Amino acid sequence: MSVQWTARAREIESFKVMDLLKRAQELSDAGRDIVHLGAGEPDFGAAPSVVEAAKRALDEVRLGYTPTGGIWPLREKIAQFHYQRYGQRIDPAQVLVTAGASAGLLLSITLLVEQGKHLLMADPGYPCNRQFLRAVEAGAFSIPVSSEQNFQLDRDLVRNNWSENTAGVLIASPANPTGAVLSADAIKGIAEETRQQGGALIVDEIYHGLTYDVNTTSAIGIDPNAVVINSFSKYFGMTGWRLGWMVSSVEAIAEMEKIAQNLFISAPTLSQYAALSAFEPEAIEVFEARKQELRERRDLLLEGLLELGFKVPRVPEGAFYIYADASELTSDSFAWCWRLLEDAGVVATPGADFGCNHAEQFVRFAYTTSKQNIALALERIGQFVKSES
Amino acid sequence: MSVQWTARAREIESFKVMDLLKRAQELSDAGRDIVHLGAGEPDFGAAPSVVEAAKRALDEVRLGYTPTGGIWPLREKIAQFHYQRYGQRIDPAQVLVTAGASAGLLLSITLLVEQGKHLLMADPGYPCNRQFLRAVEAGAFSIPVSSEQNFQLDRDLVRNNWSENTAGVLIASPANPTGAVLSADAIKGIAEETRQQGGALIVDEIYHGLTYDVNTTSAIGIDPNAVVINSFSKYFGMTGWRLGWMVSSVEAIAEMEKIAQNLFISAPTLSQYAALSAFEPEAIEVFEARKQELRERRDLLLEGLLELGFKVPRVPEGAFYIYADASELTSDSFAWCWRLLEDAGVVATPGADFGCNHAEQFVRFAYTTSKQNIALALERIGQFVKSES
Repeated sequence: MSVQWTARAREIESFKVMDLLKRAQELSDAGRDIVHLGAGEPDFGAAPSVVEAAKRALDEVRLGYTPTGGIWPLREKIAQFHYQRYGQRIDPAQVLVTAGASAGLLLSITLLVEQGKHLLMADPGYPCNRQFLRAVEAGAFSIPVSSEQNFQLDRDLVRNNWSENTAGVLIASPANPTGAVLSADAIKGIAEETRQQGGALIVDEIYHGLTYDVNTTSAIGIDPNAVVINSFSKYFGMTGWRLGWMVSSVEAIAEMEKIAQNLFISAPTLSQYAALSAFEPEAIEVFEARKQELRERRDLLLEGLLELGFKVPRVPEGAFYIYADASELTSDSFAWCWRLLEDAGVVATPGADFGCNHAEQFVRFAYTTSKQNIALALERIGQFVKSES
Repeated sequence: MSVQWTARAREIESFKVMDLLKRAQELSDAGRDIVHLGAGEPDFGAAPSVVEAAKRALDEVRLGYTPTGGIWPLREKIAQFHYQRYGQRIDPAQVLVTAGASAGLLLSITLLVEQGKHLLMADPGYPCNRQFLRAVEAGAFSIPVSSEQNFQLDRDLVRNNWSENTAGVLIASPANPTGAVLSADAIKGIAEETRQQGGALIVDEIYHGLTYDVNTTSAIGIDPNAVVINSFSKYFGMTGWRLGWMVSSVEAIAEMEKIAQNLFISAPTLSQYAALSAFEPEAIEVFEARKQELRERRDLLLEGLLELGFKVPRVPEGAFYIYADASELTSDSFAWCWRLLEDAGVVATPGADFGCNHAEQFVRFAYTTSKQNIALALERIGQFVKSES
């Protein structure tokens, strides 16, 4: 007999864009100039003052384990920031510092989704969500949503799709891959319906701070029992630092802290000390300037894509993605992305990475590169589209 | 209806020492001098040259996500180190860089232990192991082992405890809380039996490098299909950096990389760049000097505990723990540890944190503090023991 991988291991899928990225690297190594519109991380990095804070911490702190919930001053600063941003007062005991939003997703699902049960979620959506669920022997119930629905769930969709196996709802706002933002009213409707059904509400707010001309509020102010997941990766530009946080009731946070003690011990210590300075005015000024830059990129990319024949019926209001309907250009966006890479040297992510709801007609473009690069990419995509027509 | 935590969340337990540590902090805040023999982390921190490397990386590297398996130069360096230490040649593709050994445990269990199945493991053992299993709806089958068995499993124990629900075996050498080291022959026997039964072998080698007067070899050289878990936390002193690695077959590593892509994205980037310098002679010299210091601490602590009436029939050959039989002093080591803290200001970890095999008669003492502190702790424990007799 030989050892077999588990069913869960076999069913957890890799991102399709990974093979594209590997090929892009080969082309790049061979001297080709590649423009990346694939990456789900900002190109800015941490703010300079945060990097300096990390250097000081390297001198001053022995980087041992921290309390599982995070160093208390960081939990306090997050609570303060939450109040400044949303006008919602929360206790630092309602904050759990995590090793990125990834850990937050695993912890919330471990806490709330019983084996064999599922969460309702929108398709398209973040591909890992269903894999976290699969890892703990639970599942995802994907609800197809279109641009007419702003690519988001609403109260009716939640009600109509609820079944005896539904443990709750996972929403994301702004969402990946669509950049779609839920209004406070929409969140309220979903939260009420979920509570009425006796389910749990998990809200991914990792792109908060990156919204353009639209106000956002944290779901915890709407439903005090929601489990909210946030991150230092996007607005704060600290992807590789692996740091995030959760906000929920004191009881839920304490229970997840107990789980995190076992599964993670604690989040990276240096990242926690550095993040203390991420809320200072000096750093926030940097982040706000970047947000302005991102908005300009979005406008440039959106205009260019529309001119080339992509359909984007609603302007994406947040994050740094455009989920473009390429059905005028291809009926197989996966193959199209491969040809785009090989022929035009541009990386974009095929819709198949985000679900199976008409995925073959969508492509996600990330504006996580300079306007110059975006302009170059648009030129190349334009030539490529022409060559194919 | 209100939201319930899952069965798995409710069943995952917190460490009992946490309440002790909380009380110790209160006493400390109130001005009491507390000596800590509780901590499972070395008091040294990273080597100075590793800290300097981190500072350079802060200047030179934008700390984005890395490839999920880790930056390639680090995988190469780990493979080289493996060869230097054990004389076993491995390919960098057999190495997966993880967010601490915690991530390694979750990944290996996700890969190898089917829902409803269990791993055989020694009791006493690392408390989180069963919680990782519980998280993915699998279980632990604990086999009580005594000091006569060197607190470790052997081939016969594996054979005699195997059942249709057994997915494999998890061994740790050196072990927490006992410091017990498995010989190459013992590992070989366990590996052969496990293979014969068609099960998987997971080997926790996170305390490798911290063995005293005894040679160790990596289990991957004995069983090329074993999944070996290692860490930068112990020998390399980098607990708060949350960095570890795994070694296994190329196939198993690729499969776990796919899972890690979803559950973790990547390990902390700065830690990876800093760790590149952890294998340089300058750093190794520091680690070897610390190991010598740890051995002296062990000898001091062991001699002192024996004089005070604790029984430690076998000298612990690795890690930084003494798992002392306190049955001459108490029949309830948990209550005893509380009194030791309140009356004598010394923190030690009750056996109950490591299983239920005569746990009430054992106390784990960690020599992760200076010889001066150890001497002070011994004096205090001596007075405390006298006061109780």
